[in-house]
Amino acid sequence: MSDGGLFDAVLARGGARAAVADEAWLQAMLDVEAALARASAEVGVIAVEHAEAIATACRAEWFDVAAIGAEAANVGNPAEPLVRALRARVGAAAEDVHRGATSQDIVDSAAMLVTRRALEPVLDDLGGTADAAARLASEHRDTVMIGRTLMQQAVPVTFGLKAAGWLVALDESIARLRDVRLAAQLGGAAGTLAALGDAGPAVLGRFARELGLDEPVVPWHTDRTRIAELAGALGEACGAVAKVAGDIVLLAQTEVGEVREGVEGRGGSSTMAHKRNPVAAISARAAARQAPGLVATLLASMEQEHERAAGAWHAEWPALRSLLSFAGSAAAWLRDCLENLEVDVERMRANVDDPSGSVGAASELIDRALRAHGER
Amino acid sequence: MSDGGLFDAVLARGGARAAVADEAWLQAMLDVEAALARASAEVGVIAVEHAEAIATACRAEWFDVAAIGAEAANVGNPAEPLVRALRARVGAAAEDVHRGATSQDIVDSAAMLVTRRALEPVLDDLGGTADAAARLASEHRDTVMIGRTLMQQAVPVTFGLKAAGWLVALDESIARLRDVRLAAQLGGAAGTLAALGDAGPAVLGRFARELGLDEPVVPWHTDRTRIAELAGALGEACGAVAKVAGDIVLLAQTEVGEVREGVEGRGGSSTMAHKRNPVAAISARAAARQAPGLVATLLASMEQEHERAAGAWHAEWPALRSLLSFAGSAAAWLRDCLENLEVDVERMRANVDDPSGSVGAASELIDRALRAHGER
Amino acid sequence: MSDGGLFDAVLARGGARAAVADEAWLQAMLDVEAALARASAEVGVIAVEHAEAIATACRAEWFDVAAIGAEAANVGNPAEPLVRALRARVGAAAEDVHRGATSQDIVDSAAMLVTRRALEPVLDDLGGTADAAARLASEHRDTVMIGRTLMQQAVPVTFGLKAAGWLVALDESIARLRDVRLAAQLGGAAGTLAALGDAGPAVLGRFARELGLDEPVVPWHTDRTRIAELAGALGEACGAVAKVAGDIVLLAQTEVGEVREGVEGRGGSSTMAHKRNPVAAISARAAARQAPGLVATLLASMEQEHERAAGAWHAEWPALRSLLSFAGSAAAWLRDCLENLEVDVERMRANVDDPSGSVGAASELIDRALRAHGER
Amino acid sequence: MSDGGLFDAVLARGGARAAVADEAWLQAMLDVEAALARASAEVGVIAVEHAEAIATACRAEWFDVAAIGAEAANVGNPAEPLVRALRARVGAAAEDVHRGATSQDIVDSAAMLVTRRALEPVLDDLGGTADAAARLASEHRDTVMIGRTLMQQAVPVTFGLKAAGWLVALDESIARLRDVRLAAQLGGAAGTLAALGDAGPAVLGRFARELGLDEPVVPWHTDRTRIAELAGALGEACGAVAKVAGDIVLLAQTEVGEVREGVEGRGGSSTMAHKRNPVAAISARAAARQAPGLVATLLASMEQEHERAAGAWHAEWPALRSLLSFAGSAAAWLRDCLENLEVDVERMRANVDDPSGSVGAASELIDRALRAHGER
Repeated sequence: MSDGGLFDAVLARGGARAAVADEAWLQAMLDVEAALARASAEVGVIAVEHAEAIATACRAEWFDVAAIGAEAANVGNPAEPLVRALRARVGAAAEDVHRGATSQDIVDSAAMLVTRRALEPVLDDLGGTADAAARLASEHRDTVMIGRTLMQQAVPVTFGLKAAGWLVALDESIARLRDVRLAAQLGGAAGTLAALGDAGPAVLGRFARELGLDEPVVPWHTDRTRIAELAGALGEACGAVAKVAGDIVLLAQTEVGEVREGVEGRGGSSTMAHKRNPVAAISARAAARQAPGLVATLLASMEQEHERAAGAWHAEWPALRSLLSFAGSAAAWLRDCLENLEVDVERMRANVDDPSGSVGAASELIDRALRAHGER
Repeated sequence: MSDGGLFDAVLARGGARAAVADEAWLQAMLDVEAALARASAEVGVIAVEHAEAIATACRAEWFDVAAIGAEAANVGNPAEPLVRALRARVGAAAEDVHRGATSQDIVDSAAMLVTRRALEPVLDDLGGTADAAARLASEHRDTVMIGRTLMQQAVPVTFGLKAAGWLVALDESIARLRDVRLAAQLGGAAGTLAALGDAGPAVLGRFARELGLDEPVVPWHTDRTRIAELAGALGEACGAVAKVAGDIVLLAQTEVGEVREGVEGRGGSSTMAHKRNPVAAISARAAARQAPGLVATLLASMEQEHERAAGAWHAEWPALRSLLSFAGSAAAWLRDCLENLEVDVERMRANVDDPSGSVGAASELIDRALRAHGER
Repeated sequence: MSDGGLFDAVLARGGARAAVADEAWLQAMLDVEAALARASAEVGVIAVEHAEAIATACRAEWFDVAAIGAEAANVGNPAEPLVRALRARVGAAAEDVHRGATSQDIVDSAAMLVTRRALEPVLDDLGGTADAAARLASEHRDTVMIGRTLMQQAVPVTFGLKAAGWLVALDESIARLRDVRLAAQLGGAAGTLAALGDAGPAVLGRFARELGLDEPVVPWHTDRTRIAELAGALGEACGAVAKVAGDIVLLAQTEVGEVREGVEGRGGSSTMAHKRNPVAAISARAAARQAPGLVATLLASMEQEHERAAGAWHAEWPALRSLLSFAGSAAAWLRDCLENLEVDVERMRANVDDPSGSVGAASELIDRALRAHGER
Repeated sequence: MSDGGLFDAVLARGGARAAVADEAWLQAMLDVEAALARASAEVGVIAVEHAEAIATACRAEWFDVAAIGAEAANVGNPAEPLVRALRARVGAAAEDVHRGATSQDIVDSAAMLVTRRALEPVLDDLGGTADAAARLASEHRDTVMIGRTLMQQAVPVTFGLKAAGWLVALDESIARLRDVRLAAQLGGAAGTLAALGDAGPAVLGRFARELGLDEPVVPWHTDRTRIAELAGALGEACGAVAKVAGDIVLLAQTEVGEVREGVEGRGGSSTMAHKRNPVAAISARAAARQAPGLVATLLASMEQEHERAAGAWHAEWPALRSLLSFAGSAAAWLRDCLENLEVDVERMRANVDDPSGSVGAASELIDRALRAHGER
């Protein structure tokens, strides 16, 4: 995945894309090697100076992504060539690089770091989206509009209540993403930590702490429930985004005309000056709709053979990267959309036959949503 | 879905299938109407005697599934004809049946009840599977076997550690399923609770309590995060099952021969007497593999228009039923498999070149897994 | 799957559902055994009288679905208990029942028969839908309406051209479904036809002819390209239906009001008399949206181990049944929708600012679509 | 997508990846603009010199991918900024650039070109794989091995027959891919060709010919059956690859040991010298397993609103690119695997209890497969 690609501004907005790029993965793998060295030194498995030499060398800019990537073809993953390249840079500490670990330990722990880092912009943009929805809910508490069921006008609601519904769904998906369990992986060749002798569990605990990741009960090399949980939470967030974006697209229809996207110079049509296309909502939908298929790929990959899967493990990498990137793009676009949304209060009112009809508990429900949002 | 079907013993084992059957759905919808009546009476919206008359009438065996189902074609859901049939049974209370509610309130709340009831056998069988894995982990703490990575023999592990890895994944997926948020849905025609006047929120709260479901912050008619969360958790559980079943199938290969399923009279072949097919593991896999696609269907259905979706809502029904049923079948089969598993300790040892090789922290890791299991 | 279910009128309309029901599967398996007996007799492998006795006994109503289904749990498929039950009915011919075949031969060949039979109503309803689209294209050749891109009004088109676009997509998906290769499967225990001695290939050829199915180049027990092709074609047809149904839902919006479904007594709302919900289009969408996930399940099941898969084969059964049934329901609903569609020509015209604007080659393009339709 | 990425050697092998890269897309869009100009000149809609000036300017290396990509955010697709950049390069011909077309015409026609170009290496590698399978079928006509059903040893087959089964599936998926209908798209703003006046259909026909693509019956902007068909065929090919790769992984297990991958220096393990991991088969599986989810995304995207979809169209781009790239990688890896496969004939024989047992019509079936392969 490259920066500045032909479709990236539309489909890879926000910070998640860079956070899952090759350089970020490379640095994450190096961070894992550094953490392993430090943890091993703490426990006394390797010398402190060796750990320092290794940690100092773990800077992505000193390594050649293309060369490491090319060599990965011989072993099926990029950790092994990276370890060789790292060993070549650390002199006498070479023998202590990667001690006790296997390639999967490095790639899986790096995947967790990459995920945590990519979730930051995803959560930031989801949070900004939720804040924007909260603002709309509050500002339009009394903006009466028609409720629509099965795409037919039904009874009055308020735009504030609609936004409150969006808000609650966004907040719930944020809560799910925040709860995702990200744990370090260290098990050695087959998950017994045997190469670390008696020190295995102690190294595992410190390794996790160094990385700021949970310590797992046991090494999780072929227990992919974490990946599934992450996938589910990202899929849920994308669905929450898609619902809002879909509503915006529907409300922005020429015949409805109740909202429009308010970014100057965007969404115009060279041939049809009167058009104002809801580009942000459209792009959010386009990204969000990648999620169900990618989640299915990750769930189907849970069936991993014995102590390391022959394909299902490797299959996770592109699907997880794409899912994080698309979730980020969906969130970034929707945030932009809601933060700049122009609401046509008059038009909303005009679409209601009897604007004095009851909107029931709409206002109280909005308060409940705002209160729940405030408590998060 | 019928009982005693041609493929059901293979693909719909366990109690979940019956819990998602038509009769169970019908009863759940009636339970929802009864709860609504009782809640409304508590708040004073309807008379207590009417509530009692309604609640008394809400027994599935008094209603005709086929007739209600057939009439559903005219409105697109079975709640509306059910309400009419219920009204016909309660005399003067008819006017208070379904008061303040819309069809989606009934179907969605019923879906939550059906889910809670179907999750009972699913969780029971997953729990039984986890217990069986725990027993294997404990009993085979010292049973050395070869670890296999990328389907090649690697270094020694113990069968106890392998089972402990299964156990942790099962326990984690159980924890996820237990955490799923099941909430009552009540919003009226467009989610404002308007038809209940000022009493709306009070009725909502009592309605949820009557049903033993969470009270949502706001009505969630087009916030499908709950469904997504449930789908994700079921998909994760199926993946955890598939991993174990896959390992069993691999270990039971003729050339490996380290385990075999031990149910008398099952798995034999009329033409090949020497065969002992791992039918339970195979059937668990077959059910579990339905999950990724069904989860994708449910996630793709999250984009629901305005105040009631024109198709995406209806699309959830078969996918959710199937997913619950298949998760249950997968769990029931795997439980049977593990509870009856014959482990060939000698063969395991024979497949290790150097059985005295270190298995590292295997025993300590097993303890960690058993401890975590015990604490749940 | 039962007839007359609670959700069937909405989600299982049309003839496909019955064609994939248990009884239909049972009869198809019996038809396969009968064809095998006849083919074997033609080649001289078994006595003609035995073949006749077997063929005569192959009537589903004489067999107990529930009993056969229950016994299937012991072997993982319903063919084996069926063979035993069939043998019990044919006296001396018992030894020639199922000669040379394995369970998978019966189930796979039956799946092809079931598919062919289920495709009849699917194709009939798709054809009827296409005819209805053709009629709309023809009748509304000059009905000007506004074209909409990105859900914004753009430039004029005609409703006839829109219907012509639907028509071409439907016709193309019909052509794909008609082209699906349905082939007999017969290979014996591991695909060598060994149990038939030298007569194997001759029996295979006649067996295929008896069934009216293609003769495969080689037995296809773990070559699932046929299933994949079928799945793809059904998924494509569902997508073609969903596009039309989606357009109907959008055009029927209160604010657009250019079409409405015209079946008396359907789509009304008890509480909102002014509503006319597009139930047929909604139900078509609900069924069609099951397809992507089910297709994914079938594609993921293509990885089948060696000479018979341990789970992936079994996983096909429910997914294929559901996919056929949902494709049929989607087609049946859309046919109903288009055959009864009320087009509001005035409203269409009113939604165009400048109804005298050019609609370009719309009429010529309609002719091309109608011509292509006529040639099929 | 970048060349030389960290995971590309494992997951993006073969020529398809480059054929779907940004530069290839940019060139394809330019080829489409050039073809449109030439076709328009042929029909007399624009001056020949203008067409030549435009066609001459349509070279990707003269355009800035990053700049065009960045501007795409304002309109939601890269065609519009490309048209502006192209106009800036052609002086007086600027007014004739893109005449009569809309952005979707350019992107969709370019997608067809990109697909055709990407299918070349995919088909080449699938063809090479099939040839390798044919060679194995022929060479191992008499290599007896044990057939395995449900992962249990069953009755003897030959390795030649197993390879013949692979061959037929590969050949069938190749035939499907070759049949995929790739058609030009040209419809103007809403599919009427109105901006081309009476010349619309004539331009469409010549435009298609210039591009070497089919002329569609009508513009297919929201008829996505072609994309679905392509997706289905790619998914089928990936499944055919996955089946073979899965068999290789199983046969290469230490305990089975009947094949191994024969590329020097690949698949070794630094810590376990005795291992020889089947890296090619593993990588083929990893790529192939992306297909079901991506196909589901493309099928779910078929529901496209009115005359241009608000998100579903955009959602196709990344899914289609990824699917082509992964299909190519799967095919390239499997070709490498089969071309270098080492077959241990002795081990195969040793795994058969009674090597003199009948393999039935294996040899004849191999001939049938080879004959069918030869005729393609």
